[in-house]
Amino acid sequence: MEVINLEQKFGQFTDHWHPHVVADLNDQHVKLAKVQGEFIWHNHAAEDELFLVVKGQLHIEFRTHTATLNPGEMLVVPRGVEHRPHTTQETWILLVEPQATRHTGEVEHALTRHDLPRI
Amino acid sequence: MEVINLEQKFGQFTDHWHPHVVADLNDQHVKLAKVQGEFIWHNHAAEDELFLVVKGQLHIEFRTHTATLNPGEMLVVPRGVEHRPHTTQETWILLVEPQATRHTGEVEHALTRHDLPRI
Repeated sequence: MEVINLEQKFGQFTDHWHPHVVADLNDQHVKLAKVQGEFIWHNHAAEDELFLVVKGQLHIEFRTHTATLNPGEMLVVPRGVEHRPHTTQETWILLVEPQATRHTGEVEHALTRHDLPRI
Repeated sequence: MEVINLEQKFGQFTDHWHPHVVADLNDQHVKLAKVQGEFIWHNHAAEDELFLVVKGQLHIEFRTHTATLNPGEMLVVPRGVEHRPHTTQETWILLVEPQATRHTGEVEHALTRHDLPRI
């Protein structure tokens, strides 16, 4: 039952598009990631994904529109919905999603990371 | 796929110890609550509960110690662990927990609220 200080946890890594697990609850992971630039189009067939912006600005492109999230703003991407996150600055995000979720969905890409460090 | 601005959502209610649902994901609810003063001892037999402090300061008393969370800090109370939240100031918290979770657990108390408004 550790008190998790988000700022302190973000200070423990520097790489982009690489989620780090900070907590488990009810078969979900709470993950932190630093993101910058463009990610890839993907979806998660069976998993809803929560994005909460802690710092910076996150754009989530959908096939129909783009959502922009500033610090203190969140959005849930429902299962099956194709999306592509991108940013023009380094952005810190908190994610909540099932433990089974792979961050690039079914897509295998240079950005796909198979390890999931715990911090 | 609404962008949820936490500050704006907290502006929509004033009552204490009354969680409001802002999003669903994977059979979980994301809830916001304003809390002040003392809550009751309770536990959730089958549900882990995430507390993230947005504003103010939250104390979570356990049988062995008390954790103190400031803004930007979070803690997961594992299922079955007795806890009692309390504050000395109005505090804004974000919760993630299964949709089945009752905020006072199995305890029926004057503070128990059976309605779960969506905002």
